[in-house]
Amino acid sequence: MRDEEMVIEGRNVVIEAFRSGKTIDKLYVLDGCQDGPVHTILREAKKKGCIVNFVKKERLDQISATGRHQGVIAYIAAYHYGTVEDMLKAAEDRNEPPFLILLDNIEDPYNLGSVIRTANQAGAHGVIIPKRHASGLTATVAKASAGAINYTPVAKVTNLVKTIEELKKRGIWFVCGDMEGETMYGLDLTGPIGVVIGSEGDGVSRLVKESCDFIASIPMSGDIDSLNASVAMGILSYEIVRQRIVCKNQG
Amino acid sequence: MRDEEMVIEGRNVVIEAFRSGKTIDKLYVLDGCQDGPVHTILREAKKKGCIVNFVKKERLDQISATGRHQGVIAYIAAYHYGTVEDMLKAAEDRNEPPFLILLDNIEDPYNLGSVIRTANQAGAHGVIIPKRHASGLTATVAKASAGAINYTPVAKVTNLVKTIEELKKRGIWFVCGDMEGETMYGLDLTGPIGVVIGSEGDGVSRLVKESCDFIASIPMSGDIDSLNASVAMGILSYEIVRQRIVCKNQG
Repeated sequence: MRDEEMVIEGRNVVIEAFRSGKTIDKLYVLDGCQDGPVHTILREAKKKGCIVNFVKKERLDQISATGRHQGVIAYIAAYHYGTVEDMLKAAEDRNEPPFLILLDNIEDPYNLGSVIRTANQAGAHGVIIPKRHASGLTATVAKASAGAINYTPVAKVTNLVKTIEELKKRGIWFVCGDMEGETMYGLDLTGPIGVVIGSEGDGVSRLVKESCDFIASIPMSGDIDSLNASVAMGILSYEIVRQRIVCKNQG
Repeated sequence: MRDEEMVIEGRNVVIEAFRSGKTIDKLYVLDGCQDGPVHTILREAKKKGCIVNFVKKERLDQISATGRHQGVIAYIAAYHYGTVEDMLKAAEDRNEPPFLILLDNIEDPYNLGSVIRTANQAGAHGVIIPKRHASGLTATVAKASAGAINYTPVAKVTNLVKTIEELKKRGIWFVCGDMEGETMYGLDLTGPIGVVIGSEGDGVSRLVKESCDFIASIPMSGDIDSLNASVAMGILSYEIVRQRIVCKNQG
């Protein structure tokens, strides 16, 4: 699954990258730049749901390796993205109920990497992230995943709510981790499931939360507000692992 | 519990810090330096179990803020350490069986901070780390703990095995997280307990493992070797939380 990690510079090169279907994780464009090729790039970026960062010339000069960026620098994803279909297929092939992890607003690459690592160990079939406000599959993510990025597919979707609605129609239940939910130990989490984890600051966004079937809370008896997002994901995912083992032993 | 974080430089200042009982988390000494005051500092460091880093003059000059380090620079712990007795007292006051977290060879400050955060939320009474090969209570640890460092005591001990042996005599059972152990869901973890977590690379060291009563494994169905240490700690600790809740509801 490994690609070369790549930074590309210059208008035509970036337009080419978009047109050849490469996934651009990050795009820097000179602030105020309005000519034809830049418009083409912005249009392609919008179409692909790629985040554009408008920056000053000094910043571009600083990032640039060639010194000939022509106002545009892009980072191509270091790893291939998978698809949600791949994940469902993997579940079917392994004769397991689907077990998906969805991340809402998690922008920290260490957290994303750690989540991919835990997803792999917990036997989840994939990790779904939104195109906006999510870390790309960078070398940092790969390192934090301890190599799990090579085995566990990560899919980028345009709209998490839409993806959840579509998957619900296919028999998958969604549980969202939130402090105001029911204690996770009291919920039946054994069927086909998607686990939604939000950012540490803001949690899961309202619309995403409303589209979930259950809200599960991790009991917290501490003096602070929350757990680290990747730790919370690990605890909730392993409650699912536990329930699946117990269910199998009883079945 | 908050102290000022402090870097101190110069022989007499460092000797004074040792003598006034301050906890020095890190000590840099000019390599090859052999005179009286430096000998005094090395003796104090040994007595307190403080790690000494022998470095070249260039490195000291680089670290130095004042430019007058005289061959010695020390970092004083940003937060107070607690004691194991504090933790047992807290358990008694709350009328709970003691629940302690012990870290073996975890040198990464983010992992230590995250462990303190999870320990706080899981209702553990404290975190025990060895004096050697452990991160100090730095500002980075405090940040990663999301403030939990202000509530959950952290104790530094000279020898983890000795501490475990002493606590076993006081009725505490020790469980060590290790891939070769029995699946944690099959173990009774409801009594007074200490959970030992090792580093991601090397796991728990042999002597520490041998002094534990149980070896518990987290079921892993992935393609990679291990979980992130702070995630593994969260999963194992919350299995204890779960068993305690179930036990209470049945009791």
